[in-house]
Amino acid sequence: MAKVISMKCMKCGREETPRPDRYTCDTCGIDGILDIIYDYKSTPLTINDLERNPDRSLWRYRCMLPIEAETPVSPLQVGWTPLYKQTRLEREFGLGNVFIKDDGRNPSASLKDRASAIGVAKAIEAKAKAICAASTGNAASSLSAFAASMGIPAYIFVPKRAPRAKVAQLLVYGAHTLLIDSTYDRAFELSVEASRRYGFYSRNCAYNPYLVEGKKTVAYEIWEQLGYKIPDRVYVSIGDGCITAGLYKGFYDLVQIGLSDRLPRIIGVQAAGCNPMEVAMKTGEFKEQTPDTIADSIAVGVPRNRLKALRGLKASAGECISVTDDAIRESLVGMPRVTGVFGEPAAVTAYAGFRKQAHSGVIGNNETVVILITGNGLKDIESALSVCTMPEPIDPTFDAVEKYLR
Amino acid sequence: MAKVISMKCMKCGREETPRPDRYTCDTCGIDGILDIIYDYKSTPLTINDLERNPDRSLWRYRCMLPIEAETPVSPLQVGWTPLYKQTRLEREFGLGNVFIKDDGRNPSASLKDRASAIGVAKAIEAKAKAICAASTGNAASSLSAFAASMGIPAYIFVPKRAPRAKVAQLLVYGAHTLLIDSTYDRAFELSVEASRRYGFYSRNCAYNPYLVEGKKTVAYEIWEQLGYKIPDRVYVSIGDGCITAGLYKGFYDLVQIGLSDRLPRIIGVQAAGCNPMEVAMKTGEFKEQTPDTIADSIAVGVPRNRLKALRGLKASAGECISVTDDAIRESLVGMPRVTGVFGEPAAVTAYAGFRKQAHSGVIGNNETVVILITGNGLKDIESALSVCTMPEPIDPTFDAVEKYLR
Repeated sequence: MAKVISMKCMKCGREETPRPDRYTCDTCGIDGILDIIYDYKSTPLTINDLERNPDRSLWRYRCMLPIEAETPVSPLQVGWTPLYKQTRLEREFGLGNVFIKDDGRNPSASLKDRASAIGVAKAIEAKAKAICAASTGNAASSLSAFAASMGIPAYIFVPKRAPRAKVAQLLVYGAHTLLIDSTYDRAFELSVEASRRYGFYSRNCAYNPYLVEGKKTVAYEIWEQLGYKIPDRVYVSIGDGCITAGLYKGFYDLVQIGLSDRLPRIIGVQAAGCNPMEVAMKTGEFKEQTPDTIADSIAVGVPRNRLKALRGLKASAGECISVTDDAIRESLVGMPRVTGVFGEPAAVTAYAGFRKQAHSGVIGNNETVVILITGNGLKDIESALSVCTMPEPIDPTFDAVEKYLR
Repeated sequence: MAKVISMKCMKCGREETPRPDRYTCDTCGIDGILDIIYDYKSTPLTINDLERNPDRSLWRYRCMLPIEAETPVSPLQVGWTPLYKQTRLEREFGLGNVFIKDDGRNPSASLKDRASAIGVAKAIEAKAKAICAASTGNAASSLSAFAASMGIPAYIFVPKRAPRAKVAQLLVYGAHTLLIDSTYDRAFELSVEASRRYGFYSRNCAYNPYLVEGKKTVAYEIWEQLGYKIPDRVYVSIGDGCITAGLYKGFYDLVQIGLSDRLPRIIGVQAAGCNPMEVAMKTGEFKEQTPDTIADSIAVGVPRNRLKALRGLKASAGECISVTDDAIRESLVGMPRVTGVFGEPAAVTAYAGFRKQAHSGVIGNNETVVILITGNGLKDIESALSVCTMPEPIDPTFDAVEKYLR
């Protein structure tokens, strides 16, 4: 594996000795998010090896992940999700290369599975008896699936307004489910406290720095699936900021080890009703917000991983934009009809952001664009149905059928 | 591609000239289900080629599919779903080799995508302007996704009791949705009539013989993923019988081209509340039933593809068993907790059938067993929630958390 040198605080720069159950900086406390620092001279990833590697999961990049060689991992097949060329979108906007990366095809139907795969492995390294997480829904359902696949008990803290499908996943997988009568932000605090008091391994992505390392594999895949090329723009929705952080880290790794010579511009997309990252990028100041958006997975008023996400946006010459809930609703049906890919509200937020920029003409004709779809639409069908008209049942006669078809 | 010699009637044995829009036998009418007959001497599939083929989708077997070389296919990545070894199930039952094949990982979250991929390709070959299907839900949502991905209009006939998530998929993908106030069986008849009168290409799997050819790829994958070995038993739920027919056809192909020397026993599993195939296997007589089961995808009182399914069960020395809705409900949560795989009611019916036979001791210790999971649990969360207890929301304080944890 890539040799981990230290865990470095994003706030004060202090470096700590790596340990699976070290989450934040001793000096800065809970805001002292750590970054995993590698000795890039030791990393063995080569294109030659990739071409011979039959593994089609994120474990094809195991040599770049902070997991010990002998640590058992979940059998669930995660990563290596499809990257689809979008010729209809290209025609619509006069662009040359537009792709959708469908991470809703992961085991529990969201990108969060990339982090959970690492989380359960690190929990085993830490010899933890149980694992916990707070989540707006997807990280929770993901952890439940991975914990179940390894027989590890899971304790999940979710806000009670989490979509039914995500809560259903928790219950079906047998997770101990704490439905908190409050926001995600409060559920997060309670899960951190529970982790401390009961020794649960924490799979909070914006807190446990190993998890972003799982998410970074999506960047490796984009690079590899584009034929070892870096795109010009990657659109990604932002909630806590962890996926943005992971995207950046993956592309950064590739530059550090000499497999690419540049970064893509990472374009973060938020809902207008919850855009603290957009505000922070534009004003330089972070201000807590009260979320008001249909996109539950990114309804995060206090993005816990904002420092890492901001670093990724800035270092990649990216930006953060926002789209209205109306634009998100339009994309809920607009995207599947054009692409065949059904995304949940937070996922199609990235698509809506792409459309906004494509309409405004800021995307160059020759740019290669990737839209990252982070969760499957089946996770929140009520939002999808809210923008569709449920047809009236029709009589089981051919006359009725003819009438309908006319 | 494999050379297609003819389309042979399962009822009278008459052979017809192949044509993309030939569905049933001219003599026997709608009951004259056709089988695609290949010149197996012409089929070029070899293990050598497979080992060098980087394609991880059903198109890696394109040379075995009845699609012209130049026909465009949907970009949606279908097939090559994971096969998971189940060590906990092996321990529980004292068995050596138990696997779950998770076909809920397909683009629209069910095995039906294998057939839809072929369906839209054949619609293009037939130069059809639109495509239609009747379905209990999954074939419909699958067709909608594939038609959308290719820009082909879809007309869908579903019984109005189809689960919300499946109807949501139809609407999101923009299919013309006819919610028939009757059973699947009546919706099927109406779709056949509409196909005739309006020239819609028919993606009814039990009617259009090309579709079973898409489903057969799941058998190739099982063989390949087991290291070019045939399992001893494959458990599969049965509704219309098309998946059973496809499983058999795939394993049959492998024997015909000399890549395997035997068939697995195909064990069909039905819901006790709708078991016409079990009755037909045991009594030799087919009798229509009125479905009464939680497993909506297999609530089929008149299995349209019964002739092909019965052939598969008999020729493979298989059998058809049934499980109660209580056993299906138990498996809805039992399977994900042990395997990490969440299946819809009809999908876990196969798992319940495996458990029934494993408990009764008929499975030999050294047998290799594959349980085929045909659809994702996110397609019907209400059934899943009906067997879970929704937790009460708890106050956002640590005291409340402690009380819950005690």
